[in-house]
Amino acid sequence: MAKDNKKAVSEITAMDVDFAQWYTDVVKKAELVDYSGVKGCMIIRPYGYAIWENIQSDLDRRFKELGHENVYMPMFIPESLLQKEKDHVNGFAPECAIVTIGGQNTLSERLIVRPTSETLFCDHYKNIIHSYRDLPKLYNQWCSVVRWEKTTRPFLRTSEFLWQEGHTMHETEAEAREETLKMLKCYEDFYRETLAIPAICGKKTEKEKFAGAVETYTIEPMMHNGVALQGGTSHYFGDGFAKAFDITFTDRENKIRYPHQTSWGVSTRMIGAIIMTHGDDNGLILPPKVAPVQVVMIPVAQHKPGVLEKADEVKRLLAKNFRVKLDDSDNSAGWKFSEYEMKGVPVRLEIGPRDIENNSCVLVSRVTGEKTFVSLDNIVEEVGAMLDKVHSELYNRALENLQTKLNTAHNYDEFLDIAENKPGFIRAMWCGDSECEDKLKDVTGGVKSRCIPFEEENVSDTCVCCGKKAKHMVVWGRQY
Amino acid sequence: MAKDNKKAVSEITAMDVDFAQWYTDVVKKAELVDYSGVKGCMIIRPYGYAIWENIQSDLDRRFKELGHENVYMPMFIPESLLQKEKDHVNGFAPECAIVTIGGQNTLSERLIVRPTSETLFCDHYKNIIHSYRDLPKLYNQWCSVVRWEKTTRPFLRTSEFLWQEGHTMHETEAEAREETLKMLKCYEDFYRETLAIPAICGKKTEKEKFAGAVETYTIEPMMHNGVALQGGTSHYFGDGFAKAFDITFTDRENKIRYPHQTSWGVSTRMIGAIIMTHGDDNGLILPPKVAPVQVVMIPVAQHKPGVLEKADEVKRLLAKNFRVKLDDSDNSAGWKFSEYEMKGVPVRLEIGPRDIENNSCVLVSRVTGEKTFVSLDNIVEEVGAMLDKVHSELYNRALENLQTKLNTAHNYDEFLDIAENKPGFIRAMWCGDSECEDKLKDVTGGVKSRCIPFEEENVSDTCVCCGKKAKHMVVWGRQY
Repeated sequence: MAKDNKKAVSEITAMDVDFAQWYTDVVKKAELVDYSGVKGCMIIRPYGYAIWENIQSDLDRRFKELGHENVYMPMFIPESLLQKEKDHVNGFAPECAIVTIGGQNTLSERLIVRPTSETLFCDHYKNIIHSYRDLPKLYNQWCSVVRWEKTTRPFLRTSEFLWQEGHTMHETEAEAREETLKMLKCYEDFYRETLAIPAICGKKTEKEKFAGAVETYTIEPMMHNGVALQGGTSHYFGDGFAKAFDITFTDRENKIRYPHQTSWGVSTRMIGAIIMTHGDDNGLILPPKVAPVQVVMIPVAQHKPGVLEKADEVKRLLAKNFRVKLDDSDNSAGWKFSEYEMKGVPVRLEIGPRDIENNSCVLVSRVTGEKTFVSLDNIVEEVGAMLDKVHSELYNRALENLQTKLNTAHNYDEFLDIAENKPGFIRAMWCGDSECEDKLKDVTGGVKSRCIPFEEENVSDTCVCCGKKAKHMVVWGRQY
Repeated sequence: MAKDNKKAVSEITAMDVDFAQWYTDVVKKAELVDYSGVKGCMIIRPYGYAIWENIQSDLDRRFKELGHENVYMPMFIPESLLQKEKDHVNGFAPECAIVTIGGQNTLSERLIVRPTSETLFCDHYKNIIHSYRDLPKLYNQWCSVVRWEKTTRPFLRTSEFLWQEGHTMHETEAEAREETLKMLKCYEDFYRETLAIPAICGKKTEKEKFAGAVETYTIEPMMHNGVALQGGTSHYFGDGFAKAFDITFTDRENKIRYPHQTSWGVSTRMIGAIIMTHGDDNGLILPPKVAPVQVVMIPVAQHKPGVLEKADEVKRLLAKNFRVKLDDSDNSAGWKFSEYEMKGVPVRLEIGPRDIENNSCVLVSRVTGEKTFVSLDNIVEEVGAMLDKVHSELYNRALENLQTKLNTAHNYDEFLDIAENKPGFIRAMWCGDSECEDKLKDVTGGVKSRCIPFEEENVSDTCVCCGKKAKHMVVWGRQY
């Protein structure tokens, strides 16, 4: 068994040779997913699902601290309900899975397996919102959704995925707009503080907006290879859905009005972002806050008297504060090193007879490989500090990658040159016309506007594509 | 607003007048669910979903302590996969929802929305189980499942419901049988310790077994009106699925063998059990361990100086240990009393100027209405003790109901008499023949075998139906 697994570790393709294959190798070998018999649907294995559970519990706490409540809506949407908001149905109709048979009978109305639940929430809000006293409604849902995809990759693009979708209703436009930005900020904080991932945040262009939204805001982390991943979105809907669904309330002046709406979501795709932001040729590297195992303890010369006893004592101490695993199997220490490196465990703790004699042990960072000898007297603090350090190391390395691969194009030729020769994002001015977006995408074979960043800078006066007066700086890039 | 809600409280039908209507009133008025536009699918509202979250986190901890890991399987099952185990497909085919269209194309193979996931787990286990070293596999999944139901009621029977499904694989029959019983015991402990619900546990008869199981064990709590609710089941599958799915492993003697399998599940139906076991004519009564609000604080004469300040101080103290809500809205104290009674908050804390003068407050049990004056000096301990007391009061009251309504029939006439005149369960001997089960069900209009209890007693020598030699004592009853 040890031998087989050793082989598995060495089978990871090098990132520089084939990044896509590296990704596929890592998700399989680290036992994050397995492929299922249903095209485009993945099986999330215990190690992968434990990452999702840690993500969920952290985000759920953040949402609740901001006053949100969880609910559960049906997984089916009657076709007529999905059709109530025109832009929305046009956006989603092409990728729907549709139930036509229930209990051996053909259904009188077809049911869409939810691709997103705006329509269900609106149908419910119509029943429960009557007065300004009923507002705001700050609801969130954890569930799975289905979007029929042609080309799929585990976590990045699957026909079914797990996510959360927040759906809120407010008295005023100002309050709804504030919520939209607040939740994007919540995602940004989560990416930085929990996933150790920096990102560029901003507003989507008209062309890239969510189906039915007035504004879509986005968080766009950059993967190790310079490609963007849309990491999460937050939408302001205005009162468009409210009108389509006839949701009204009596305001403080006793007038009948439409409430203003938002929605926002992140998904299991974040696990893909973790893999592609932090991983290396040895496999996964997991940010400590979401790692299922934060510290793996590997006893050295474990057959010698006292080693396992001491290791177990240290383990019990650490387990009160951290997710810790002691591997006392009879696999070789070398095999264990490779295995947990591949699985991305942030900190390795080695402890052998000589360490025990010195009342110390060795901590090894998964990011840098650096070894630190620490005293067992304050092992809890030392491990805590090491985990914090790993988090910072990951964040700083990712930030450096983002900054290094963030290029600026002042004109059309520069844009094309960068798009062809330099992986990463491109900062360039834009006139506001979607034809220019289309053209840039065509000529570069896929470079799209990621967002108009919150922090714009006037890098030139004219649109990089048509030469007309520029309206905005846009960050452009290829995407997953 | 206060007035409308006051009316809502008084609109609950009395239990004795119409138990079914009482149930419907409670789930609606306490804002546990709303009906959706999809037949048989419910919307679980924040107050109902918070109960589910508390159930989930308690059960999930129990499962993990017993060594189980969570995974996520696709929500779709290819039709051919569902058909691999004959009994299983026969059991579920009549109630399937089927996806026939994906991404605007008719699918080449129809996809079943999972009614349960044995087939998906087996398909995966086939890939990952090779050696005895890979066993046991102790997996669990939290998800929603769909069974197309003709008659539905919130929580009790819905076309979509939330649940957990454990699926485990073992080296030996003995180990799998042990797991089956261990998980039933886990459910029994959970019902008693967390939901304050006593139940009868035992084995299902052949006729009432799960589709594809060798043995099905069940937990059967009795609702207030004497009707049974199948509260959870645990199945031993033998190696039937393993053979159908060709799952084999190399055992310790290097022989190829089939592993032995179990599955076990409980669902949102438990919320129905809570409502119908503990509720009364004033509405819900929630067991403290799963109540979203454990203590509601109602300030008396809250406009008087110092009252709200003191209430808030006490609240902050309690909030470190309990889920506490301070209602300082301008609704009347009387309205608040009714509202939180209806919502089943286990303990009410009243605090007014005179209490504050005496450094005390009043605790009121939702079960008995008993008032206790307690010192603010040790308010955390007092509230903790009161919550424990409410739990015991609920459990004991439900146990008394179960014992009172547990009748014994020694012969056919007694069986019919009890079935017609006494609500509750019937203990009676049975020959082991399913024809007798059918007959008893027919003549009584619905009394079915609940289980062969673990603690059998020989109440007579012959089958209560056919008069032949009895094999088992069975507990019989009507069911939801």
